[in-house]
Amino acid sequence: MRNIRITGCGAALPENTVHFGDQTRYRMKDGQTLLDLAEMAVKEALDNAGLSIENIDLIIGGTATPLQAIPCNASLLHERIAKGTSIPAFDVNSSCTSFITALDMSSYLIDSGNYKNILIFSGDTASAALNPSQKESYELFSDTATAFVVSACHGESGVISSKQCTFSEGVHDTEIRGGCGLMTAFKMTDENKEDYYFDMKGKRVLKLAAKKIPDFLEEFLSETGTNIDDIDFFIPHQASKALRLIMDRLGVPKEKYIDRVKEWGNMISAAIPMGLYTAIHEGTVKRGDKIALFGTAAGLTINMLYMIY
Amino acid sequence: MRNIRITGCGAALPENTVHFGDQTRYRMKDGQTLLDLAEMAVKEALDNAGLSIENIDLIIGGTATPLQAIPCNASLLHERIAKGTSIPAFDVNSSCTSFITALDMSSYLIDSGNYKNILIFSGDTASAALNPSQKESYELFSDTATAFVVSACHGESGVISSKQCTFSEGVHDTEIRGGCGLMTAFKMTDENKEDYYFDMKGKRVLKLAAKKIPDFLEEFLSETGTNIDDIDFFIPHQASKALRLIMDRLGVPKEKYIDRVKEWGNMISAAIPMGLYTAIHEGTVKRGDKIALFGTAAGLTINMLYMIY
Repeated sequence: MRNIRITGCGAALPENTVHFGDQTRYRMKDGQTLLDLAEMAVKEALDNAGLSIENIDLIIGGTATPLQAIPCNASLLHERIAKGTSIPAFDVNSSCTSFITALDMSSYLIDSGNYKNILIFSGDTASAALNPSQKESYELFSDTATAFVVSACHGESGVISSKQCTFSEGVHDTEIRGGCGLMTAFKMTDENKEDYYFDMKGKRVLKLAAKKIPDFLEEFLSETGTNIDDIDFFIPHQASKALRLIMDRLGVPKEKYIDRVKEWGNMISAAIPMGLYTAIHEGTVKRGDKIALFGTAAGLTINMLYMIY
Repeated sequence: MRNIRITGCGAALPENTVHFGDQTRYRMKDGQTLLDLAEMAVKEALDNAGLSIENIDLIIGGTATPLQAIPCNASLLHERIAKGTSIPAFDVNSSCTSFITALDMSSYLIDSGNYKNILIFSGDTASAALNPSQKESYELFSDTATAFVVSACHGESGVISSKQCTFSEGVHDTEIRGGCGLMTAFKMTDENKEDYYFDMKGKRVLKLAAKKIPDFLEEFLSETGTNIDDIDFFIPHQASKALRLIMDRLGVPKEKYIDRVKEWGNMISAAIPMGLYTAIHEGTVKRGDKIALFGTAAGLTINMLYMIY
């Protein structure tokens, strides 16, 4: 086990909500940015951990989308929360499961003894690139920021095992093709404008995920030497309304995972940490519980991290 | 020491060059993409290591700029080099020093025993966003891709120490503000078009770097318990023509570092690995040598990794 303890967590949702039938989605108002939300989430996480920014050894942006092409998101947030310090800052990006990857990387860094407290923030500006003509994705996503402090400990908490697989036959099923290096903003025309919006081929994603997840989970459990009933609680990515379908297929009863797709939608890289934050605050996840963070991401990536909270 | 051995490296430059006085720069031709170059660099690195893609446990994109807003660069390259496999893929981004951060992360992963061979690719599409009216940066950058294979070993090579500091008082001195979450392509107008180009305040970057680097290096040497003469060879980021000025100030003689700014310009995240690739191929860096990878990045970040090659 790689010793690491979640010592603080924070989350910030925009005040502004929109509704599609019985579904609620959070969207930033004009002028508000993800950095505003992230700053609030970090403040809550540090307070919750009883730490100040000077106690942090490293800031990781575990985010799915860039705020600017240069520099990295963590440097941009650094200006808000750590200006005047020399705390290192970089991003780790595995799309929607970036928080899992960042937490996993942190477990190696902290377990080595070289780092004591790492701050991970996650979140994306979903609303910036939603396509009004693609109803399925337009009505699915929310803007949110989350922050977690993870700290050194003495064996009472930690990452038991982790696994990521990427299946690039699905790489074009979830993308924003335009705006960056392959197709810059300068190349936008009336004809290719759709390429600059978020584009999700929902059925294809679901089909590939449903095909790959059962084997992935079986391998994960076998490599970890555990079985699904040993896992006290699942924090799955809130990918879509199909969440229940996927969890049913895996044989996870609904009292053992969090499902807030109706209340939140898909919060991209903030979805998993928001699920964990909520489960901690509601008392569903308690110290000593064995929990699994789990999700699919654009890539197509499947990611899982099993830990003692 | 975190045991890790560089077992293969590759690099690919575009055929197309441009010249500014005695300075040569590499720029991709229309239709060519960074993925084309990266694919070539990966092939060379795998051949050099005597490995095939099936031997790779993880693909890290150690890149400074996104090719698409979604998914991460490593997933996009996965399609070219690893389609049909389940090799995990994610990005690590500390701007121009992303290769150092990715190599450093890899040293933790491999030294843990959980990973055997990691593939790191670096490179950016500099030419996509250069501003013709900002001569200093327009004439500085080149497009390049590099790839390295890093592998488990038995103590003969490894990372002795590493250090990153981020000073966000310089965060707006090097940026591409437009194209992503904070200012999408949809918001481009004739008035704000400049925001979508690469923007570097060269004098400010140099001033802040010159102020911070000496203390950074002193702390690094002190924490590592070594002195500058123990370092056999430096691979500095080829940030600008001021490279020699900085190295002079640090007291590093010119035979102990690579300087190809005239021949290559600044290759962004590929600059440091391209320097290392060249030093390995030219025999300047030999097995057992103690080398320091070192550079500044947008952030402002200063990054250093000291290792036995």
